[in-house]
Amino acid sequence: MDSGTHTLLVLDPVPGIRLGTTCAGIKQPDRRDLVVMELCEATQVAAVFTRNAFCAAPVIVAREHWTQTPPQYLLINTGNANAGTGDQGMKDALACCDAVAQTAGCMREAVLPFSTGVISESLQVKAICDAVPRVLEALNENGWVDAAHGILTTDTVPKGASQKLEIDGHTITVTGIAKGSGMIRPDMATMLAYIATDARVPQNILQACLAHAVNKSFNRITVDGDTSTNDACLLMATGQSPVIIDQAEGAAFTALCTAVTDVCERLALAIVRDGEGATKLITVEVDGGCDEAECLQVAYTIAHSPLVKTAFFASDPNWGRILAAVGRAGLVDLDVSAIELYLGDVCLARNGGRDPDYREALGQQVMNQNEIIVRVILNRGDAAARVWTCDLSYDYVRINAEYRS
Amino acid sequence: MDSGTHTLLVLDPVPGIRLGTTCAGIKQPDRRDLVVMELCEATQVAAVFTRNAFCAAPVIVAREHWTQTPPQYLLINTGNANAGTGDQGMKDALACCDAVAQTAGCMREAVLPFSTGVISESLQVKAICDAVPRVLEALNENGWVDAAHGILTTDTVPKGASQKLEIDGHTITVTGIAKGSGMIRPDMATMLAYIATDARVPQNILQACLAHAVNKSFNRITVDGDTSTNDACLLMATGQSPVIIDQAEGAAFTALCTAVTDVCERLALAIVRDGEGATKLITVEVDGGCDEAECLQVAYTIAHSPLVKTAFFASDPNWGRILAAVGRAGLVDLDVSAIELYLGDVCLARNGGRDPDYREALGQQVMNQNEIIVRVILNRGDAAARVWTCDLSYDYVRINAEYRS
Repeated sequence: MDSGTHTLLVLDPVPGIRLGTTCAGIKQPDRRDLVVMELCEATQVAAVFTRNAFCAAPVIVAREHWTQTPPQYLLINTGNANAGTGDQGMKDALACCDAVAQTAGCMREAVLPFSTGVISESLQVKAICDAVPRVLEALNENGWVDAAHGILTTDTVPKGASQKLEIDGHTITVTGIAKGSGMIRPDMATMLAYIATDARVPQNILQACLAHAVNKSFNRITVDGDTSTNDACLLMATGQSPVIIDQAEGAAFTALCTAVTDVCERLALAIVRDGEGATKLITVEVDGGCDEAECLQVAYTIAHSPLVKTAFFASDPNWGRILAAVGRAGLVDLDVSAIELYLGDVCLARNGGRDPDYREALGQQVMNQNEIIVRVILNRGDAAARVWTCDLSYDYVRINAEYRS
Repeated sequence: MDSGTHTLLVLDPVPGIRLGTTCAGIKQPDRRDLVVMELCEATQVAAVFTRNAFCAAPVIVAREHWTQTPPQYLLINTGNANAGTGDQGMKDALACCDAVAQTAGCMREAVLPFSTGVISESLQVKAICDAVPRVLEALNENGWVDAAHGILTTDTVPKGASQKLEIDGHTITVTGIAKGSGMIRPDMATMLAYIATDARVPQNILQACLAHAVNKSFNRITVDGDTSTNDACLLMATGQSPVIIDQAEGAAFTALCTAVTDVCERLALAIVRDGEGATKLITVEVDGGCDEAECLQVAYTIAHSPLVKTAFFASDPNWGRILAAVGRAGLVDLDVSAIELYLGDVCLARNGGRDPDYREALGQQVMNQNEIIVRVILNRGDAAARVWTCDLSYDYVRINAEYRS
């Protein structure tokens, strides 16, 4: 969709991280499709992975390697997800790790593999292994933007975000890249996302920071409700800055958490804005619920409703569809007459029906915008939740009907 | 979609039921949009209604009236759902009941109102009331097919089914009509459906029969996962036949149940075949689960996945998307390597990956058909479940983006 994400991407390097990108010819001959990230010694790595039971071979291998030894290299290919590939998929993922380990001179377990692309086809192992020397030669500190391109699939724009912050008189950097456009309903994980900082942070503190950030960003977006088999999100701390954050509380931790969350939120919103076929970014806010869980239940029911999403595509303030989604969200003892529904600042419905002051022209004005906030006030408690989604267009169908051809 | 439902609809009358249909000009001038069903004295009526908390005014009124006095007239309009209309909607629904009661000479409470169509617009009460004398004049025993047309909204074909059966040497008839095409994910109810028999059946026995039938038919279909605000399904027994079924067990009850279930299943499948934009009927069978609930969980996750539905639209045997849906269905301790996946008789995957004997041409052959069975064998128990759905096409988006214009 037409948004600020089309402006030129500029990303700050993170001391201790080098990136290389090359064309391995995995699916198309001249497309950047292979990325390596090199982490300096002592880098701490926090990670979350997809909860899809059918997780891909590289996810299984990456999770195993990550627990065995400190990661030194991340190997990321697009064009093929190496998912639903059984035993052969596991062997293929390990073969790619071996290629990096042999060329770079490290243990196989120090390499974490990540794949994204079409599901259930055999990985192009030879093409990847042949390209490993080239991609390692390309390593450099300023490789973030190339890498952001190199991990895309059906995405139309690269996704990255940087932030600098002062802690104890020192400036540290948080930079991240992500990919994702379809099969987006991250569940305790994300699409592929890699975030790094040069602060020195022990692994358990880093993991707490990542969990907090992911829960407020990637875990609050949905394009089509389909959780990927290959989701993964890593947060790396290289320790190249004098800044040390060794407690999961206090001002320094809060500052880092805020910066990481902010970067993750910008990446997450970039994914929704670039959702397959998306023409609109829709923020669904649910207030006044008994607890966050029921607010999320209502928010996701709205965000997943094909009828709501097609109405947004048509810029049609068809608020009956939104109320119908609220009504089927499964909340116990929901008093529908207490609910208020807003599009932007315009109140559409209260007391179980149309707001007496509402005029269709007001709703239409909001609907014509590219970014729309839907707000549902349940008026039965103090909890709130927010999720982001996009509309459902012809292009979503076209992209997914043509994906393999 | 192109299917047998395009053949001419022929429905057997049910002694004791008369139907009238007319053009009231609710949304379009020359469209049949108002139906009355007249039930003879002593007709017993079983009913299930939508569980959507935002249920429409006519649903609230119909449910109340139904519990107060034996129904004599059903008044059904299309073109406007009278949902999300607050207090005015309730008054409007009652005004329509009054019009029937005054003209026909019965109590207001003996009239059950039903509405379907656009949500959140005021009901055209005057047009409906003006047409009531005409629609009552049109009442006749052979009015089923006209009524099947008169209740449609975005449906492209009328939906009806008849069955005759012998009980105790007498022939009884079961005839039903239904409408539904979008906002289809019935939950303990259905879209609008009216089924009648001339057997004499006490209300509680009739309700048991309806509950059984609905659970195996309307409650097993989904087009887009959106539960309507106006769903209702009625089963009427006029008692005009000498056949008396007064126990919820035994051969006669079983025979009636089977016939009603069969009629409901035919109506339910007609709804899915005519799903908005549908080009394919997809049956999702899940076997070998621990219980029916988890089989349904997997089946509905597949049936609601936009990625699976667009792959079916494209006739693309992209089975990775089906496995990804199984994997995110939320089953505890799911062993993905035990799962088998079939398209028709073709095994696509087992042991967590592609079946060694599978060839894409085999999957393509099944995918090219109009009616496709997806079978997932979980191999962890004896339970099974089956649901029906359709694909997701450009036309689904077009129909729902253009619906109000």
